[in-house]
Amino acid sequence: MKFKDKTKQKIGIIGGGQLGKMMILEAKKMGFYVSILDPTKKCPAHSIADQHLVADFDDKNAIKKLAQKSDLITYEFEHIDVEVLKELEAEDYKIYPTGRSLEIIQNKYHQKNVLKQDQIAVPDFKKVSNPNDIKEAADDFGYPLMLKSCTGGYDGKGNALIDNKSEVESAFQELGSGKTPLMVERYIPFKKEISIIAARGLNGKMKVYPVGENEHQNNILYETKVPAEISEELKKEAEELAREVLKVFEGIGIFCVEMFVTEEDELLVNEIAPRPHNSGHYTIEGCVTSQYEQHVRAITGLPLGDSSLVRPSVMRNILGSGKEGKAQIIGLEPALAIEGVKVHIYQKTIARPGRKMGHLTVTADSLKLAVERALEASQLIEIKGEV
Amino acid sequence: MKFKDKTKQKIGIIGGGQLGKMMILEAKKMGFYVSILDPTKKCPAHSIADQHLVADFDDKNAIKKLAQKSDLITYEFEHIDVEVLKELEAEDYKIYPTGRSLEIIQNKYHQKNVLKQDQIAVPDFKKVSNPNDIKEAADDFGYPLMLKSCTGGYDGKGNALIDNKSEVESAFQELGSGKTPLMVERYIPFKKEISIIAARGLNGKMKVYPVGENEHQNNILYETKVPAEISEELKKEAEELAREVLKVFEGIGIFCVEMFVTEEDELLVNEIAPRPHNSGHYTIEGCVTSQYEQHVRAITGLPLGDSSLVRPSVMRNILGSGKEGKAQIIGLEPALAIEGVKVHIYQKTIARPGRKMGHLTVTADSLKLAVERALEASQLIEIKGEV
Repeated sequence: MKFKDKTKQKIGIIGGGQLGKMMILEAKKMGFYVSILDPTKKCPAHSIADQHLVADFDDKNAIKKLAQKSDLITYEFEHIDVEVLKELEAEDYKIYPTGRSLEIIQNKYHQKNVLKQDQIAVPDFKKVSNPNDIKEAADDFGYPLMLKSCTGGYDGKGNALIDNKSEVESAFQELGSGKTPLMVERYIPFKKEISIIAARGLNGKMKVYPVGENEHQNNILYETKVPAEISEELKKEAEELAREVLKVFEGIGIFCVEMFVTEEDELLVNEIAPRPHNSGHYTIEGCVTSQYEQHVRAITGLPLGDSSLVRPSVMRNILGSGKEGKAQIIGLEPALAIEGVKVHIYQKTIARPGRKMGHLTVTADSLKLAVERALEASQLIEIKGEV
Repeated sequence: MKFKDKTKQKIGIIGGGQLGKMMILEAKKMGFYVSILDPTKKCPAHSIADQHLVADFDDKNAIKKLAQKSDLITYEFEHIDVEVLKELEAEDYKIYPTGRSLEIIQNKYHQKNVLKQDQIAVPDFKKVSNPNDIKEAADDFGYPLMLKSCTGGYDGKGNALIDNKSEVESAFQELGSGKTPLMVERYIPFKKEISIIAARGLNGKMKVYPVGENEHQNNILYETKVPAEISEELKKEAEELAREVLKVFEGIGIFCVEMFVTEEDELLVNEIAPRPHNSGHYTIEGCVTSQYEQHVRAITGLPLGDSSLVRPSVMRNILGSGKEGKAQIIGLEPALAIEGVKVHIYQKTIARPGRKMGHLTVTADSLKLAVERALEASQLIEIKGEV
């Protein structure tokens, strides 16, 4: 082993958004040196990173430079040129999760295929090259149907719901007429959306977090409640599924496994994220070890920490409101006056309607109390664009 | 109010050691801009501060510069030239805790006098100008006696225990022969040493943390256990005492109140620190709101957070071992493999025997488990000087 003292490893993060920022806040507790690559000079992680390479995410030379400055590389989002990562790996740079894991996951069609091959239940899906493929899929799956870009989508971007045959053509055009690969999925009328944060270390050991229950609005996560209000049996099943998924992808670091609970109480894997996830923000206050600390432990070869829940937790996103403009926080004081409320502000200079500007987490003695307080706090606080 | 959005206030910290670092880690969660003043270029807080003024702590111009760059000033240690702070306050700069609070507290004789005047129980004490004053005090208090420098001491430095008359002269010389003011105290054969972290906001509202039980070795704290193993009655009394103390000093921000539990189960206030304290490190993992977040909330005029304990917690300091030299961490991996262990590394470049290099906190379902695991972890981890 090159490093007797593993905290001497320099970490490089592709991306300096809120996830990168929260990783650094944990890495710094243990004294790590952290560099970031992000095109935005005043990105959320900027002020706490040891070095900031200001460069575009598709700038191969910049990614190489980051690798040269670091002992290992990780990333906070999945839309990275995998070829660059694989080249770097060929040159013996350490990248976690690996380029191979990312390659499969960042293409939703490949992701689902691999899961299916490994007997992991997913909604039925099919590759799409033209509108006719969609109509054929409808013969099997029925309407409504979910059309998806295989690559590049996030927060519902790159998805289109097709209610009936007459919408096929327009949806196909909306998602680029097949210029980027498309797929279609059976629409699942789920009872609940849940997700599990899970970590896998360099030695293959795993830690699974409790099941979180998610609510989305306009395809963006707005609330995660933990523990999820599902049966103990389903919880165990979901945890087992998360472990399976990490094994399949040989994941290293934190992964998020999003699942549907169907009306028949079956679990279907919806999507995998190869990184700390919005639905795992609650772990900062709610769990013994946060997903960010766990990620740092995993990728630096340190033992994984206890992932148990300490208190029932509710996380709510704070999305930009008003018009696009300089971010101004309103109502922070009354929100913080509510018991157990913690507010995270991402320090994005510009607020835009719907942009993730911060989040709040409430821990309490009961989930009911946490839900109430989180609702109250989220109605008080606002991050607004000031023109 | 100047700031509608209070997170826009720039914070300046005099001192960039581990306490400053932990303050910044919490301030950054809420998006604050933080500058530090510290003579050491690579001090613990350096890499996460927005600005670092590299200057000596007695450099008046540098402190003024820090004030000009900041909307409010705080500090992480008490040995600061109060006259500078008072001048700045006269020029309308905000300093928390105030120069007036600090002035009384940084002189232990004044500190005890003010407490005594306000009917707060303290060990008997007397001012000392010459060896004869010590002998006269012994007539009242008996031997052993504790001789103390009124200013500048910390971690037992500036204290001398006098066992009998023959040691008076040498102790007097050891502490500078009266060149700096001295005092003598009745020696208290205490059952336990306890401390309370307490916060007071700009509006006078207070939050008191649970009682911690401290063990010292060579006058340096080595373990804090929370909750303290004392009667509920004594806990309430200690909490009440902490509130009284904060009122007396008109404290703003976090204060630590150290107390003795005498053999008769009486509480005597030993010392006050006008800042987050080593014995409050456990609050990061152990309490809903850490002392560092609470300090930031208090001095920026935000509402104070819930100070309750979430799980029994034990903190142990990691002191430098070996020889003076480049700090090398040994045994981090087995320590982190123990359930619930969190390790904080202060990133001090040079380790010296006895220097505070880091700490570990263990939370567990019972205090007994936390004590056992903390002991085990602290026996595994070492931060050593490499020559």
